[in-house]
Amino acid sequence: MSPSAQHQLFLGSFVHSIALGQLEYLHSTAICVDSSGKIVAVQRDCDRSTAEQSLLPRLGWDLNHVTVTESGQGQFFFPGFIDTHVHAPQYPNVGIFGKSTLLDWLNTYTFPMESSMSCLKKARRVYSQCVRRSLAHGTTTASYFATIHVPATNLLADLCLSLGQRAFVGRVCMDRLGPDHYLDESAEQSVSRTRECIAHIQAIDPEYALVSPIITPRFAPSCTGPSLAALGKLQKETNLPVQTHISENNNEISLVKEQFPGIKTYTDVYDQHDLLTDKTILAHAVHLSEGEADLISQRQSKVAHCPCSNSSITSGEARVRWLLGKGISVGLGTDMSGGYSPSILEAARLASLVSNHLAMPGHRWPEGTSDEDRDKVKLSVEEVLHLATRGGAEVVGLQDRIGGFDVGKEWDAQLIRLNVVPDVDDEASGSSDNILEGGNVDVFGWESWEERMAKWLFNGDDRNTVKVWVKGRLVHARR
Amino acid sequence: MSPSAQHQLFLGSFVHSIALGQLEYLHSTAICVDSSGKIVAVQRDCDRSTAEQSLLPRLGWDLNHVTVTESGQGQFFFPGFIDTHVHAPQYPNVGIFGKSTLLDWLNTYTFPMESSMSCLKKARRVYSQCVRRSLAHGTTTASYFATIHVPATNLLADLCLSLGQRAFVGRVCMDRLGPDHYLDESAEQSVSRTRECIAHIQAIDPEYALVSPIITPRFAPSCTGPSLAALGKLQKETNLPVQTHISENNNEISLVKEQFPGIKTYTDVYDQHDLLTDKTILAHAVHLSEGEADLISQRQSKVAHCPCSNSSITSGEARVRWLLGKGISVGLGTDMSGGYSPSILEAARLASLVSNHLAMPGHRWPEGTSDEDRDKVKLSVEEVLHLATRGGAEVVGLQDRIGGFDVGKEWDAQLIRLNVVPDVDDEASGSSDNILEGGNVDVFGWESWEERMAKWLFNGDDRNTVKVWVKGRLVHARR
Repeated sequence: MSPSAQHQLFLGSFVHSIALGQLEYLHSTAICVDSSGKIVAVQRDCDRSTAEQSLLPRLGWDLNHVTVTESGQGQFFFPGFIDTHVHAPQYPNVGIFGKSTLLDWLNTYTFPMESSMSCLKKARRVYSQCVRRSLAHGTTTASYFATIHVPATNLLADLCLSLGQRAFVGRVCMDRLGPDHYLDESAEQSVSRTRECIAHIQAIDPEYALVSPIITPRFAPSCTGPSLAALGKLQKETNLPVQTHISENNNEISLVKEQFPGIKTYTDVYDQHDLLTDKTILAHAVHLSEGEADLISQRQSKVAHCPCSNSSITSGEARVRWLLGKGISVGLGTDMSGGYSPSILEAARLASLVSNHLAMPGHRWPEGTSDEDRDKVKLSVEEVLHLATRGGAEVVGLQDRIGGFDVGKEWDAQLIRLNVVPDVDDEASGSSDNILEGGNVDVFGWESWEERMAKWLFNGDDRNTVKVWVKGRLVHARR
Repeated sequence: MSPSAQHQLFLGSFVHSIALGQLEYLHSTAICVDSSGKIVAVQRDCDRSTAEQSLLPRLGWDLNHVTVTESGQGQFFFPGFIDTHVHAPQYPNVGIFGKSTLLDWLNTYTFPMESSMSCLKKARRVYSQCVRRSLAHGTTTASYFATIHVPATNLLADLCLSLGQRAFVGRVCMDRLGPDHYLDESAEQSVSRTRECIAHIQAIDPEYALVSPIITPRFAPSCTGPSLAALGKLQKETNLPVQTHISENNNEISLVKEQFPGIKTYTDVYDQHDLLTDKTILAHAVHLSEGEADLISQRQSKVAHCPCSNSSITSGEARVRWLLGKGISVGLGTDMSGGYSPSILEAARLASLVSNHLAMPGHRWPEGTSDEDRDKVKLSVEEVLHLATRGGAEVVGLQDRIGGFDVGKEWDAQLIRLNVVPDVDDEASGSSDNILEGGNVDVFGWESWEERMAKWLFNGDDRNTVKVWVKGRLVHARR
């Protein structure tokens, strides 16, 4: 799977989100991607021969130097998924969280694993598997938290570049609330080590075409005021994006109040240290007040919703409908290993379920709330798939480059294949091949396209993602 | 995959639940299964040569006529899963539920699909795929709702028998609240058609060794009083098990109150019609009152917890800890297609998450409830795996025959394989084989067995289930 040196022609069915809740189905369509990985034409009602006879000539492309990929019967191209919040060094801990909640989870599982990434051999094994695994699930862009270690963080950036995943790679800054051996010694060290990682990424990908640094204060409880201030200053100087956590857990919020007694809210802590920018990704945002959400909206900061993590470490259910209503951009994050799954499809599925849990009668609703009002918070199939793609693109600030199949955007895409149930006279004596291959999404043939999308969302997995491209380059393929 | 004519010897690691929350790990162990499918010996500290030299001779078994299966490195045998509540005819609808809740979901999606099973060709295609799919996920026993159609219900029983899945197969009885063309005409017809299905199963499996009939009033809202009474009488006469739904959704509960104005509670409706027996499986039980749960406990009726369905069609979160505290047996159900997944492993995973949602601060807890008290409702990895196996066996009344690796029980088991992450010097240049094969559970080698079980629970799928046996017969295998 080497970089594509050629122009490419994609033919068949394409599905993408064009607005929240609105999937567009483009059938019998041709999409042309130039050798730089950019979409230069989207032509409807265009089969292979029309493409060869009129579309390619119009672009001045020689058919002999164009790679052609067609979606098979019932297959479709879908934009690559965007994981707006993930911790690569926690990958080996996925599924291991017991009954813990945020603060004890950090001490019991997370800090020991993260600190062990000081061993580069281990980091290479873990990060390779993490990046490969997420590519296999169709994640074409990921915003990674690494660890405090400069060499291992740089290695993660190297691996993303070589394996072909678009990524934001952040060296984690934390100068308190960790074990002594896993802390920056000072705000200055947080900044200087972050600068080392920025310099490395500049060296390997000077225009941040694929991999970009991101300023990464872990979260307010583990950063002193001077550290936050220094990182805010660094952001102003570099104009780089920022990622951190906010308001995930009630005990965390209480801790922030104790640590910053002069500052009114958790959100204000970031704002007063110049970290609440329009390039800031805030993970979780479960327990925000109205005023905090308004401030985030005003600053145009973004939210990474992590429903799997919300559910696993029992943080609470983020109110996505409410955040969207405030005009805040929301994407999805796996939050491995607070979340157990490497899959953004699973995150989308759980975003739906978490929104359902919010709507349930057992949730704290004002007396007399109607069923209809409760149901409004539910997220549809189309909405969660929007968050997984175009919504995520806004969150990572790449809305002009990825997230949909628009001319001018780059070709970050996956080819999806569903399982067709055979129609034979005697199934009982038939073979089990269709059970062993191709995953769990069983299509009988009578389903509408909307129903197929729902089936994919709820029973799909990496087996349905048969090819993955980033910036035009094929970075993963199944037979 | 034909019936095993031979005795069998299983060697290696075995994991099973011996009590709620308590997994037992048997390593270097041998289990002998006779040609009837029964476990006749469980021998610890027994490798292959010890088994051959002392265990088999002690049983009087000739090594040349014993089939030997060893778990590979890091693999383990686990009891087959028990799906205590599933609707086979709804299988094509998995994932398709939109924003509906129970009553509109029935009318929009469920009744149209179920009624189409009057076509036997369609029923064969759907039921074959459903049974094969659930076997592939390690479900060795399932309690099926079929439809009102006698021939299609009998076909489902035939398929379970031929494909080798242990099953309870129930013809659905409903004489109101469905479309006119999809209703029994009378209580008498509900009973006479049920008798036809009982007779069929008696004919194909006279001792109900694998497949048993089960009396299946759909639920109180779709059965008139006379119909419930007649089915209660049929139960007394036949002593067959019963399955139905209870207290899934608030609107459903209101409807029952309207329909049975003289009866105090939903539970009382079943009790007063002699359907609340110690062989009754009640699906959902989300909104029971204290008094109802006490009555269910007193009658020794069982509960099928369906967390995926709870979350998908927004019914509410069943309080499993509370039900268990009442002394009620609880198992897991996929409830396809109220639940979207054919997998009881997914049901176990979601049982954990649903219990977490119950524990969340946003849930209606009395003022001043402590974090510790909230956390008590959470279900552990070990607990949900218990519900999936031994708990389910109690619910379907087969606690003496299946659910664990005890002498005298039958060999309903699955062989589980996790994915070992390679330890090479340069992952980036390595192959992706370990990503493409074997599923998503990545084991690095340092994990404890408890951690492996957690990883399997949270990221496992049918790829990890490499072999499945029912009553000693190999019924599913991956390469």
